Amino acid sequence: MANSIPDITPMGLSDPEISATVSRLKAKATLVHCMTNLVAANFTANVLLASGASPAMIPSVEEAGGFARIAGALLINVGTVTRPDAEAMLAAAESAMNSGTPWVLDPVAAGVLGFRTGIAAELLKFRPTVIRGNASEIISLCGDEGGGKGVDSSLSSGDALPAAVLLARSTNAVVALSGKVDYITEGKCVIGVEGGHEMMTRVTATGCALGALIAAMIPAAPSALLAAVTASAVFGEAGARAAQKSAGPGSFAVEFLDQIWAVTGGC
Amino acid sequence: MANSIPDITPMGLSDPEISATVSRLKAKATLVHCMTNLVAANFTANVLLASGASPAMIPSVEEAGGFARIAGALLINVGTVTRPDAEAMLAAAESAMNSGTPWVLDPVAAGVLGFRTGIAAELLKFRPTVIRGNASEIISLCGDEGGGKGVDSSLSSGDALPAAVLLARSTNAVVALSGKVDYITEGKCVIGVEGGHEMMTRVTATGCALGALIAAMIPAAPSALLAAVTASAVFGEAGARAAQKSAGPGSFAVEFLDQIWAVTGGC
Amino acid sequence: MANSIPDITPMGLSDPEISATVSRLKAKATLVHCMTNLVAANFTANVLLASGASPAMIPSVEEAGGFARIAGALLINVGTVTRPDAEAMLAAAESAMNSGTPWVLDPVAAGVLGFRTGIAAELLKFRPTVIRGNASEIISLCGDEGGGKGVDSSLSSGDALPAAVLLARSTNAVVALSGKVDYITEGKCVIGVEGGHEMMTRVTATGCALGALIAAMIPAAPSALLAAVTASAVFGEAGARAAQKSAGPGSFAVEFLDQIWAVTGGC
Repeated sequence: MANSIPDITPMGLSDPEISATVSRLKAKATLVHCMTNLVAANFTANVLLASGASPAMIPSVEEAGGFARIAGALLINVGTVTRPDAEAMLAAAESAMNSGTPWVLDPVAAGVLGFRTGIAAELLKFRPTVIRGNASEIISLCGDEGGGKGVDSSLSSGDALPAAVLLARSTNAVVALSGKVDYITEGKCVIGVEGGHEMMTRVTATGCALGALIAAMIPAAPSALLAAVTASAVFGEAGARAAQKSAGPGSFAVEFLDQIWAVTGGC
Repeated sequence: MANSIPDITPMGLSDPEISATVSRLKAKATLVHCMTNLVAANFTANVLLASGASPAMIPSVEEAGGFARIAGALLINVGTVTRPDAEAMLAAAESAMNSGTPWVLDPVAAGVLGFRTGIAAELLKFRPTVIRGNASEIISLCGDEGGGKGVDSSLSSGDALPAAVLLARSTNAVVALSGKVDYITEGKCVIGVEGGHEMMTRVTATGCALGALIAAMIPAAPSALLAAVTASAVFGEAGARAAQKSAGPGSFAVEFLDQIWAVTGGC
Repeated sequence: MANSIPDITPMGLSDPEISATVSRLKAKATLVHCMTNLVAANFTANVLLASGASPAMIPSVEEAGGFARIAGALLINVGTVTRPDAEAMLAAAESAMNSGTPWVLDPVAAGVLGFRTGIAAELLKFRPTVIRGNASEIISLCGDEGGGKGVDSSLSSGDALPAAVLLARSTNAVVALSGKVDYITEGKCVIGVEGGHEMMTRVTATGCALGALIAAMIPAAPSALLAAVTASAVFGEAGARAAQKSAGPGSFAVEFLDQIWAVTGGC
């Protein structure tokens, strides 16, 4: 019973709660404190701007704690983390927890490399509002209970769904598991979001930017669960539309930003 | 009298001094030492290349001072500054001052966060040739005399014009105040540059790249004032043209680089 | 005799060994550990993804050595190197040498700045599989024997060919010398690859991304020499095609990624 997987409820952009959340983001223009990797920083900022949010990358330990307190939401992505980055991230996460700023943890490549796996474990103590990752990362954070398959990039999001549910239950975080179908769970229900396109895996930083958009959505959504569902639905729709209008990964990335803009209502 | 605001003189790309400066940049291919934030680095380099300048990002304290001496101009942007970055920036600024390399200070988010506000204040001691910022940043650098409104993103560039004039007078720098209308002043006259498009605020790093283009223009211009005016005029024209040819922020950013290229004469 | 320059053999995408290597990269999806500069990181990742390779940027000293051991290939590019970066790069290079991971050294601006020139010299001790650079950089690494002209951006790749051959002989590395014509040599033969377009010099990070694609090609190629030739041929063809379909550097960069995708066979 404790390990049972709830039924999957499909949701998408046409659901009224989702479309209302998208509209509220445009009105609120959430200030998102992004502590992210050097590959994703530019694209992440552009995704947030296209959706109506307001990005601010503040990486230093001198500023991160204070800024996490005043930001509308915080994203921590360990993709290219170094020790100084980690100190600042831990300070920001603690500050976010203590001041009530919602925050998203993106544990890039956790389980593959010991240093970042340890940092991700430390960050978990500061109670992220949402954890976003792919199958391998979610299973890694879950520890042995997730199935113990270790890192395997051939895993589908469905393979990691039990681990996602367990991780949500043990951390009290919403877990957003990315894949061909995105699954979002707080441990009791599971929402499935379809859409997207294989081309999203041929452009760097799409997953990282999704974590940032989830963060942006939290203050605009009725719940962290619906924030993650909304961000996934926006990405899925924008990705599907962009794939139809592009000829390769270069034009796809450009079109994706235009479609994030269009899907979220433009100016 | 000391606090009076000079009349505003409009200028644009069609002014002969401006178009001649654009042509000279293409001929000189200014080598611009950029010490900028990790979000803006790529776009900044591409804006400089599209305009005919030659960017070099040199962030380390071991190299920054020496390179600032041999570069044609230096940009210091504190957008994602950390302590090691700050040490290198201070070394570069001191070297630029001592060797006569013109340099631009972009005090991103000064006034919002104490660490960078302090760094910006220290950098001011090394006499930047141009200070580029938005209304909040310019008011922050100006201290209480600027009106004391503090940080307010709803401020227009016009609201900060008195602070810009005061800052120019107290620092002997040209101040380039960005907004719907850009104002450029050395304390005695004020040039207004219209153009641009709201879409420029929906793409990250446009302001940061403007700071770099101002730096590139200084060795090509009759004065630092006209360098900043020329860069603003190029940005305004490229932004206005790009907005007409794009469907969202993704295609706008691409088209903006093409228009920087076109406006500055292409190859 | 020891300083004689071998005859130049032209090669291109139509050579069967080259096209077969391109196909094998798509099948192998080489995991490329990239330690590169902050300007090039995003574009480099996107070039690798477009070609079928799998990029991972791992900059920290805590992880770089371990990851270099498990990666399919390693790229080290010193474009924006700082002291902590250098420590991690040296650890990664040593690990690559000891574990047999092929690796590419891109000594950006070696010869211009002392710090990075010293780091490049230290990195050479760990026996890079390929050294990629422009004329100035290759001459700098070669020391006085290369002709002693020092840094001169007006040098053509042909001017540096003697230095490239000497460097290959003294290091046992393949040297990939970039320019209007790319020359690739292991000291005994020289392959010339034509193609590309002047617009590639008006977009940042194309050379840096070429270094990464060379790394990706090594496990897919019959030799490191052919890996470098294949990557150059892919770049030359993609660049030439992209120039025909674009209006400026912004659209060129987008089209270049689409053409990397097309030239390497798409999905």
